[in-house]
Formats: sequence, structure tokens, C-alpha cells
Amino acid sequence: MSDPIRLLGAPTSAVGGRAAVVQTARTPTGDVVGSSLTPLQDLSGTITPADLHFERHHAGVPAIDPAHHTLLIHGLVDRPTSFSVDDIKRFPRVTRIHFIECSGNGELAFRGGVFGTPNPGLTPQRVAGLTGNSEWTGVTLRVLLEEVGAKPDGTWLLAEGGDACLLARSIPIAKAMDDTLVVWAQNGEPIRPEQGFPLRLLLPGWEGSTNVKWLRRIELGTRPWMTRWETATYTDPLLDGTARQFAFEMDARSIITSPAHPETITSGWREITGLAWTGRGKITRVEISTDAGHTWSNARLQEPVLSKAHVRFTQMWQWDGHETILMSRATDETGYVQPTRAELIRIRGPGTLYHWNPIYGWKVAANGRVFFHGAT
Amino acid sequence: MSDPIRLLGAPTSAVGGRAAVVQTARTPTGDVVGSSLTPLQDLSGTITPADLHFERHHAGVPAIDPAHHTLLIHGLVDRPTSFSVDDIKRFPRVTRIHFIECSGNGELAFRGGVFGTPNPGLTPQRVAGLTGNSEWTGVTLRVLLEEVGAKPDGTWLLAEGGDACLLARSIPIAKAMDDTLVVWAQNGEPIRPEQGFPLRLLLPGWEGSTNVKWLRRIELGTRPWMTRWETATYTDPLLDGTARQFAFEMDARSIITSPAHPETITSGWREITGLAWTGRGKITRVEISTDAGHTWSNARLQEPVLSKAHVRFTQMWQWDGHETILMSRATDETGYVQPTRAELIRIRGPGTLYHWNPIYGWKVAANGRVFFHGAT
Repeated sequence: MSDPIRLLGAPTSAVGGRAAVVQTARTPTGDVVGSSLTPLQDLSGTITPADLHFERHHAGVPAIDPAHHTLLIHGLVDRPTSFSVDDIKRFPRVTRIHFIECSGNGELAFRGGVFGTPNPGLTPQRVAGLTGNSEWTGVTLRVLLEEVGAKPDGTWLLAEGGDACLLARSIPIAKAMDDTLVVWAQNGEPIRPEQGFPLRLLLPGWEGSTNVKWLRRIELGTRPWMTRWETATYTDPLLDGTARQFAFEMDARSIITSPAHPETITSGWREITGLAWTGRGKITRVEISTDAGHTWSNARLQEPVLSKAHVRFTQMWQWDGHETILMSRATDETGYVQPTRAELIRIRGPGTLYHWNPIYGWKVAANGRVFFHGAT
Repeated sequence: MSDPIRLLGAPTSAVGGRAAVVQTARTPTGDVVGSSLTPLQDLSGTITPADLHFERHHAGVPAIDPAHHTLLIHGLVDRPTSFSVDDIKRFPRVTRIHFIECSGNGELAFRGGVFGTPNPGLTPQRVAGLTGNSEWTGVTLRVLLEEVGAKPDGTWLLAEGGDACLLARSIPIAKAMDDTLVVWAQNGEPIRPEQGFPLRLLLPGWEGSTNVKWLRRIELGTRPWMTRWETATYTDPLLDGTARQFAFEMDARSIITSPAHPETITSGWREITGLAWTGRGKITRVEISTDAGHTWSNARLQEPVLSKAHVRFTQMWQWDGHETILMSRATDETGYVQPTRAELIRIRGPGTLYHWNPIYGWKVAANGRVFFHGAT
């Protein structure tokens, strides 16, 4: 490469691009039924670029003409109404930063179930990349429900997406009237097709599949609809043979994103950094262990710490060149502490798959290479 | 377009794209010496997507190999040091949301100088698109200056960029030790080439050209260097024939981004929304007038209101179908109030060009079409 100060540079452009040497991308794991994982190890701060925000689809990404898209709100309401996208945008708008996380986040980190053998060659992207954090803009669902005259006996609603499988989830009315949004913008720009263009339901802190993309219909009723996505999937088998259903809130979790595989580090001072989040409000503490869990100390949390949003944590660390294991542990404002693998097994049993949030370790070898150590 | 619920959608991808119908883009105004403007009218919330963040270059965008890029800090320091990009990333990192604004923002809104006749066909992008707001990650310059042992008699520093014109600005040491950052990430991703890859100086709230891109050298000295970019340009002619130099802080400003040209609106309720910002801390109030400035009322400010960052304001408005003019006026925490055009002329005289921040108006015609009304 020539010395850049000896050459005129490239002209201004209509849309910018990444540096040619920046190879960050998602990791698609499937076709129309599959996912693309956020490259957590390549990202700084807390905002996930929209084109790198994870995807999880059940019938691919539909091509929707926003001029003809509508959101029908009906059922137990006084005035069943079909809203155009322009209609929705006339209501008072709010902007909030929130994470979305697939409740299956973590299942890809292991083969043979989440209790299988960890693959040391996994990156943060593969271990926990089914999450992203964005600035969302839209209208509160409460305003729309007031507009159509939601009846008092409507205790649940069904949210249906406009993809070919008509993915639908049942939502308690309390959440709908609390902080649920119908959003049309992500990180400042119109929401992208993979994220639900032109309208997406956003339930801050709740499992990803309830944040219905390509939102086309909301029906108010008196009980859950028992859709495929809350019966055949997205339920948690328990020790007694029953299954936990409607486990909406995502538990507190954290992951160190650097140092992590595939980095090789050198001895001396460097920073340990990563992300923590909880569906129950604010993260209040992230602890880091640099000695395989024997001792822990509080990491610094990047301000402002927002509710139901990714929080960046950092801690300076002087590596002495000896093999060790790095771990992180999050606590949220309800007092919930991210569990160990053993605690998860004791509570949930060996059949669990969703809502898998154990403390993870990264092994630093004496030669400085870093490997995924699994859940400990 | 076929009904999307009858077709399988597109598969997951490594990097996402915008919807085909979303035409948002910057407006390049020049070649290697020129600018690209942020499409403010297409954006929601407060974060500017990195590929739509305005550009202003003086010798184009250099192609820099980060593996060979260094930042030299020398002059009045105990230990002159050349830092690699990896070296810089070993220091404690901070993440902050801040705007950048070119001090020439607004000059494109008029022909024949900023006091010329306004073109009614201008959009918010053309009127005030030389600004963007991002989440930046890097290290404080204070930490780097402590590392090299800045001497007490170093009162100014020179920051030099790695483009072909070696753009350089003189910065008082007080700002360098206050909130100045050397950043390598924007909105979560490695900073893009147009924004200074791999390292950029960030001086929160100060005029854009001081936020030196492709940062390669910082020299400590005892007085300003009087570079081309603080003598021949980026100075403000005053009424008495002298010029104001080193007018670093950007004054409080606001612009309504909707309704704005080229929208056509219909009568009834809708939201007026826009952005406000100040280089002096936090915006404390944005007032909106829907009757050409006769009466004003406070808009709602989107929380959290951050210091030296874009703030989104909103206000519901019921248009009665009569012609009117919409205006916005920002106040910041120092008590500074965005001025009228007449106040700016009285203080600065007819030669002013930079730091042009008058109250703007948008005329709503009886047929609902919206036009730029200029500064009032």
C-alpha cells in the first residue's frame, strides 16, 4: 500500500462502506429457516450496526411493499382498525435503546445439547451472537390500543407477522400496556427487511421470538392462542417432566468479547471488555475473574446504564504470561445473579435448551492463544 | 408485488441491506474536496447510521493500512512515542455519544452567501446536513498525554491527519485534558474510512474540522500553529473588519426534520419532530412555533438527553389546513438561545459564513406542500 499522504484520496460518496481490511460479518447458520449471528468480538461500545444485528427466521425474509402493508388490530376492541404505515407514523413517537436476544442464544455453542463438550475454537459470535442492541423508534402499543378502544376483558393478545409461516405469539396485556412498542426505525434508519420492515413489535427484555417482525395483525382475546412457537418450540423442559411455557423475560447474562478466541495476546496491561444485559431492568454489577473463578472483582460499567439494554463492561488486567481462565458474572437490579452451569443443571435438568445463560470461561494459554472454555 | 405471506422469504445473510424502496443516501457536493450530507429527513431517533454520517474532506479519503498506521505524540513531552493502533487499544476504553458538525453547516442552504435568497426546494439534508451523531469508542487523550509525560509548559497541541493535505488544527491543552478522545469505533463497528479509519480525534462539541480524521501526529507546543485551516478558512469575519479565530464551540441549533420539504401533509393530527444540539453541554429546551413565530411552546425532548449530542424533539400538532410557517428554537444549559437571522446579522455582520445557526422556518402551503422558508 502506498503512503496515503502521497496520494489524493477517494471522493465523497452517497453511501459509505467499511474499510477493505475490516472483515466483520454475521455467520449465517441456515437457509430460510436459520439464523445469522452478530460478530460480538468485532464490535465496540453498545450499539449493534443494523446490518450486523442477528437474524432468526422461520420462513425467510419477506419482500413487503410498505405502501400496501397494514396492521390490523381487532378482537376485543370497540373499533377494529386497519392502520397503514403512514397512519402509524402520525402517532406520538418514542425512541429507546433496547437489546433483543433469541431465547436459543447459546445453544450453538455446543454439540449434543447445551451440556455437550465445548468447542475451543468458538468465538463470542458463535457462543452468544444471537443478540443485538439498537436504538428503536416507534409508537407505544398502549397508544394504539387506546385508539381502537381495547375492552377490559382483553387479557391476552396475539401478534402475527407477515412472513410465510405467519409466526405468531401470545402476549399478556400487561406487557402490551407497559413498555411494548410498534417500531419502524432502528439506529436512525428505516428498519431493515431482516429486522421486520416496515413494522416490528418490540417487547423490551422479552425473548426474541415475541418481538414479531413484519407485524400485520394484533388480536385481543381472553387466553393465549397456543401457537406452534409457544408449544412445539420456545418452551423449557423441566426436571419433573413438565415444561415451562411463556418464559418471556430474558435472564441476566454476560460475555467477555475480548480477550476471546481467536485472539492471541501478549503479557502486560490490556483491557478485558464485554457485554452484559438483563430482561428485568438494569444491570447493577458485572464481576470479572482472571483466575478461573477463585476471586472476583467489579468491572467498570459504561455510562449511561440503560434498562433492558446491552451494557459495556471493562476492566484493566495485567497478564503475567501464565495459563488462566477469564470469566464474567452479571447481576441485575432484581438481585438475580448469572448462574453457574451446575446451578442451571440443578434447577432445569438436562433437557433444557432455551434461556441458557451460564457463566462462560475463556482459557488463556501460556503462549497467549485464547480458547472457549465452555460453561463452568 | 406478490402477497409476501404466500412466498418463502429470502435466506439469512452475512451482512444485511436496506429495503429496496428505502432510497436514503447522502448528497455528495464535491469530488476529493467536498462534502456528503446526512439525509436528516429520512432518519428517526438520534443515531446517524455510519454510512450516512456526513463527510467533509480536503484531499479525499486516504486508503490506510491499519497494521502500518501510527500515532506519534511528540514536542513538549518527556517520552516522545509512536503508538500503533494495537497499542492505542490496550489503554482503558470509553464509549460516548456525541455529535459532530461542520462549522460550515448551513452555508449550502443559500446562494450568494448565507444571507442570500433561500431556495424553497431545499430539504433538511441540504439545509443542515453537515452534522451527525454517533456512539464513539476510544481512549481519552488525557491518558495518552499522561503516558508520554506532557510537560507543564505545553499549552497547545497540533493534531495532524493522514490525508494528502495533512490537515492540521491547533487545540488548547485544556480541551485535550478535558473530554477529548482518540476513537477507533463508531456505532459499534470499526470507524469507517470516510470518518477517519483507523484513528480519529474527537473533541465533543467543537467544530468538525478540529475532529481530525486519520490522526497520525500530535505535537505539544506553547502557541497555536496558525495552519491553513485556522487562518485562510474556518474563521469568522466580524463587523469591525477583524476576524474571529478559534471559535471552537458549536452554538446551540435546531432543525425540524418533519414536516419539511419535500413532504406533502394532510390536515389533522401529526407529529412535528426534529433535532437540536449544542457544543456547550445539554439542550434544556426546544420551542416550536406553528404560527410563524407569534407564539411558542415547549417540545418534548427524547430521554436520555446527553451532553454534546443530538437530542430528538417532538410535539403533536393539529393542522387546520391553512398556510402557516413552522419554526424551532433551541436553548442550552448555559442559557444560550438560538438566534434569529436579524440577531446574527447585528452581531456578526454580512460577511459571516461559519457558525451560522439561525432559526429556520418551513412554510406549509394550503395544499399541504412544505417548502424551506429560510432563516427568519
